[in-house]
Amino acid sequence: MQKGIIKLKEPPVILSAASVVGSKEYEGPIGKCFDLHDTENKFGMKTWEKSESEMQRLAFNTAMAKAKIKDSEIDALFAGDLLNQCTGSSYGLVDFDIPYFGLYGACSTAAEGLILSSLLVSGGMYENCAAVVSSHYCSAERQYRNPLEYGGQRAPTAQWTVTGAGAFILGHGEGRIRVLDVLPGIVTDKGIKDANNMGAAMAPAATSTIARYFAQSGSSPSDFDLIVTGDLGTHGSAILKDLLLCEGVDIRANHLDCGVLIYDGETQDTHAGGSGCGCSAVVLASYLLPKMRHGDINDILFIGTGAMMSPSSLLQGESIPAIAHLVRISTKGKRT
Amino acid sequence: MQKGIIKLKEPPVILSAASVVGSKEYEGPIGKCFDLHDTENKFGMKTWEKSESEMQRLAFNTAMAKAKIKDSEIDALFAGDLLNQCTGSSYGLVDFDIPYFGLYGACSTAAEGLILSSLLVSGGMYENCAAVVSSHYCSAERQYRNPLEYGGQRAPTAQWTVTGAGAFILGHGEGRIRVLDVLPGIVTDKGIKDANNMGAAMAPAATSTIARYFAQSGSSPSDFDLIVTGDLGTHGSAILKDLLLCEGVDIRANHLDCGVLIYDGETQDTHAGGSGCGCSAVVLASYLLPKMRHGDINDILFIGTGAMMSPSSLLQGESIPAIAHLVRISTKGKRT
Repeated sequence: MQKGIIKLKEPPVILSAASVVGSKEYEGPIGKCFDLHDTENKFGMKTWEKSESEMQRLAFNTAMAKAKIKDSEIDALFAGDLLNQCTGSSYGLVDFDIPYFGLYGACSTAAEGLILSSLLVSGGMYENCAAVVSSHYCSAERQYRNPLEYGGQRAPTAQWTVTGAGAFILGHGEGRIRVLDVLPGIVTDKGIKDANNMGAAMAPAATSTIARYFAQSGSSPSDFDLIVTGDLGTHGSAILKDLLLCEGVDIRANHLDCGVLIYDGETQDTHAGGSGCGCSAVVLASYLLPKMRHGDINDILFIGTGAMMSPSSLLQGESIPAIAHLVRISTKGKRT
Repeated sequence: MQKGIIKLKEPPVILSAASVVGSKEYEGPIGKCFDLHDTENKFGMKTWEKSESEMQRLAFNTAMAKAKIKDSEIDALFAGDLLNQCTGSSYGLVDFDIPYFGLYGACSTAAEGLILSSLLVSGGMYENCAAVVSSHYCSAERQYRNPLEYGGQRAPTAQWTVTGAGAFILGHGEGRIRVLDVLPGIVTDKGIKDANNMGAAMAPAATSTIARYFAQSGSSPSDFDLIVTGDLGTHGSAILKDLLLCEGVDIRANHLDCGVLIYDGETQDTHAGGSGCGCSAVVLASYLLPKMRHGDINDILFIGTGAMMSPSSLLQGESIPAIAHLVRISTKGKRT
């Protein structure tokens, strides 16, 4: 049954990870974890779109520096973002002379990139791969919603697009943190049409992937230190836990959501939490993976969640297709 | 040197391929080759975007029917298109209960999907994969350029977005047509800023990939029946041949371009030729692969070309990053 979990024969090592964020993320509860930030959110660039691209370049360079690896040693890039035609990535990584696979998985793109990198490193096609993703509040607002200057009121279930880029380098080198299993997501559409409630649209996709994982692996939530979703936010997380309970899976004791972690909803006016490709990427890179390196946690399920509508599709009355890609990251060494 | 050609250890078979096109493609010089067409370009749908999604669904279903394979036997979908947030694919394939990898490679997406499908089938991660892509003239015009009703004048170097979807099923089954080598592209930007001359922007990327292929493989253009680019059009093709001559590679005797093949520029008012994800996909699916099945050609290099700008990036004065992914398709059986 190939549609299920792929257990990696040669689990690749996450050699390094890096994060670049904006001011709001830096001021948030885990702000001091991130590698780089710019309080002006511009990273020296003149447009928000160029700023987003620059974050990708910085994140990738920082990840390479941490792994003490040169760009000539990276065999392939898997990259994506939320901008139309994924220009955050194509412009951000154009300076690197590295084969490039453009991805679009909405906010699940970090997990999608980790899956493809892991599969190709594990399969021996590549020695080292990198997954690089980004989102930027200011480029996303004007593309998906309104110009910043409009100052639109936001719904309680709305999420705040994270200004951030994350980069991950995977390979066969030394290291304890490995990707053991992957479970790619299936597109799921349960009829949610409210772009201000993407958590509700993505929760069924996350439910499907997580329930499949436990059913196929024979494991249970308590076998893992954490089950981490990408950006369901507070509302979507509540829906996920309810839906999974209906499937007989109880993740209430050890579920976290990157969108909930990254901001303080009480003081930062971020409503249901963070979202965007950068959200799960920077939290994984700079909050979760360091905890694994320090031995605080050892075995997690990381589930990237994505809402794959467009502003046009919603104006045309369509509902929101969503996806959730799962990656098991563990310090438990090679599969025994 | 992993950055180069990956020679597939277990070359996957292209089990089937299918194409769905619009009226202009059907009326073109190779129009009778395509599997399905709709003279109204709507495929029973109310919006151009839904029409594009429906083409993907039809192409994938047709490819499965040809291969006598059910959707439950397809382990993963690699899909993409040109619409913002790649909604042609996410909405088009939502009905299938199959793990989904969203791609964005602009017009090179068919080749990108073929590469990833080939690598994962060859590596034994999957038994059968499908690559599905689309573009639609009407959805692309209003997104990238002007509303159709505007009737804008077109530059001589402009290309016409193909209304078409192509689907390819790759696996380990019976069949003579296999993917032997793949060479993923590197993002290249030579400073072209004219969206009405995408051939010029993409030609350097194609040059880079093709020159790398011959340098690394030790083969020469005459070793192949055809060297087929995706959608450089007449102008881009001329530039490609000139640039390659400067590199000491002469492909003039056996180069074809899908964008040149699909329309009759003299009578169809398509200026420099066709473009779009669908262009190279439908020409490969229904013109080139049947020629291979009939033994007319046996060994080709298929190079998908993509221009990865967005309307916003061009308005902001940026140039056009481009990419070219190469796939060697051959009836010469397993690598010896």
